[in-house]
Amino acid sequence: MPIHAMAAHAAKKPLEKFQYEPAPLGPHDVEIEITHCGICHSDLHLIDNDWGMSTYPLVPGHEIIGIVKAVGPEVAHLRKGMRVGVGWQRNSCQQCEFCQTGQENLCAKMGATCLGNYGGFATAIRTDSRFAFPIPDALSSENAAPLLCGGATTYSPFRLYEVRPSMKVGVIGIGGLGHLGLQWARAWGCEVTALSTTPEKEREAKGFGAHHFLNTRDAGMMKKAAGTFDFLLNTVFAPQDWGALLELLRPNGKLCVVGVPSEPITIPGFPLLLGQKSVVGSVIGSRHMIAEMLAFAARHGVKAQTETFPLDKANDALARLKANRARYRLVLTV
Amino acid sequence: MPIHAMAAHAAKKPLEKFQYEPAPLGPHDVEIEITHCGICHSDLHLIDNDWGMSTYPLVPGHEIIGIVKAVGPEVAHLRKGMRVGVGWQRNSCQQCEFCQTGQENLCAKMGATCLGNYGGFATAIRTDSRFAFPIPDALSSENAAPLLCGGATTYSPFRLYEVRPSMKVGVIGIGGLGHLGLQWARAWGCEVTALSTTPEKEREAKGFGAHHFLNTRDAGMMKKAAGTFDFLLNTVFAPQDWGALLELLRPNGKLCVVGVPSEPITIPGFPLLLGQKSVVGSVIGSRHMIAEMLAFAARHGVKAQTETFPLDKANDALARLKANRARYRLVLTV
Repeated sequence: MPIHAMAAHAAKKPLEKFQYEPAPLGPHDVEIEITHCGICHSDLHLIDNDWGMSTYPLVPGHEIIGIVKAVGPEVAHLRKGMRVGVGWQRNSCQQCEFCQTGQENLCAKMGATCLGNYGGFATAIRTDSRFAFPIPDALSSENAAPLLCGGATTYSPFRLYEVRPSMKVGVIGIGGLGHLGLQWARAWGCEVTALSTTPEKEREAKGFGAHHFLNTRDAGMMKKAAGTFDFLLNTVFAPQDWGALLELLRPNGKLCVVGVPSEPITIPGFPLLLGQKSVVGSVIGSRHMIAEMLAFAARHGVKAQTETFPLDKANDALARLKANRARYRLVLTV
Repeated sequence: MPIHAMAAHAAKKPLEKFQYEPAPLGPHDVEIEITHCGICHSDLHLIDNDWGMSTYPLVPGHEIIGIVKAVGPEVAHLRKGMRVGVGWQRNSCQQCEFCQTGQENLCAKMGATCLGNYGGFATAIRTDSRFAFPIPDALSSENAAPLLCGGATTYSPFRLYEVRPSMKVGVIGIGGLGHLGLQWARAWGCEVTALSTTPEKEREAKGFGAHHFLNTRDAGMMKKAAGTFDFLLNTVFAPQDWGALLELLRPNGKLCVVGVPSEPITIPGFPLLLGQKSVVGSVIGSRHMIAEMLAFAARHGVKAQTETFPLDKANDALARLKANRARYRLVLTV
């Protein structure tokens, strides 16, 4: 039975209806009937071929939730009828040092759900069951879909860089990623500050768990906050005043970047040294991290704030995201 | 009895003979008769007031070794006749979080041996005994003096950033700091590469413990080495091609900066993220780190390669350092 999808046929073109016959179900594969698929900023980059690695027709979508319809003969941990999610990564070599140590997201041979494969803007997907995650009952599909990529991206830094509940954490940018970062930080037990150039977002930021709001354009507030943060999570893709952010950190403080800035990150050397500070990166999440995140979200009520569009209105949703009007995460319903 | 020293009386001026009456010996103080004092690059910066914090007359020198001549009434761990060393830091508040956790080098109220105080280009010094370290018998004073600052600066990163003996470590720059970094890395059990723009230094770098030599101007060698280092220690003060260094790191790899670059460090965001890499700083060393380093140096035979000058030829030594002709660390003998 063909899979119905929305696909880009060339860079920067609107999506069009598209159907394809899926490849035979491999021994480790699972077929998922998709009910929801979040839209991530990286879908825009894939459609536009901003990273020079897209192939067409391209079916975007890597924040997938759906119901298992069929499993390959080697699949033991999933059954027909289970609700599962799939994120950015669809497979890995299963053999390298990083795969062996639970860091599949660093595997050099990792496959992406939307690269060389048709993604989640579709009625179904066949994919490697080892990268499909059961969704806890407490999470609604609509609110959980964005956790598969945006959630993992903002959760992993807390684990990778050993954030403790006693720390002061700042989340820079209150958007699709940032509103999740605030929720993780609050659920993690931290003292949480939302950093933004938009004072109008203060109320909502506090609704997501921020104790404090710091307008990064207010020089007086920035000066007062100097040297007070243990951990800063930057979710903004636009260039930042990196020196000013570094000044906000206490000694041993870390600035973690999860938005990919288009321009280089420029760091003054002196404060990096004298305060033994770190500028670090984090990319999506490994399998065990995603499973852990889903359980943590279920226990703490972390959820993406979403707006939905039907699958065939995917272009409208993409336009809304591109116009920076998503509040805060868009999800296609199938 | 007055202390005889060499002092700068204004920025960028040659040192001149200078004598002063030391302050009364405080309860925690120790008086040290200096036998050796290393010359650090930062002494040049202090003399020239490059950091805008020098006061004159300025007696440089913060890689001091000498013999205890007198101790204050509260000093229990040092006795007259012991051989001790003093580094960059001369005191701290003893009360803040960082002092309480053995990170005195991060204390906001830390005092420096040569700032607001007369340093080690002198016949003697009175200073806080809590920042004077007994020197193990196995170390010669001449070869150990540079460990008090240059040694601590290059040793601490191994501990702070949890370098393991199974790792591949690169030391960038084969100079006063780098030749110590190579020795620490080799003694630490790592696979060690010296990175330099000067192929002529290969033989000496291997003498300091490098297994391999990488000419960073050789594009072919750099390409071949991409993704192979777990830890890079940058000891160079000149601007670097930071993107190229980041490319040399494996996933989770760390680039640690201990030279203070005058220009900002410019890091491309994509490789930082995708490889979960870190750019980190490290500054001198805490008390327990310096004591540990001295014991480790004694056990592994780590020593600065030195050239000596008598104290009254300090200007000649400074000129040699400024001309980048020190091989590898200069020490004044008193």
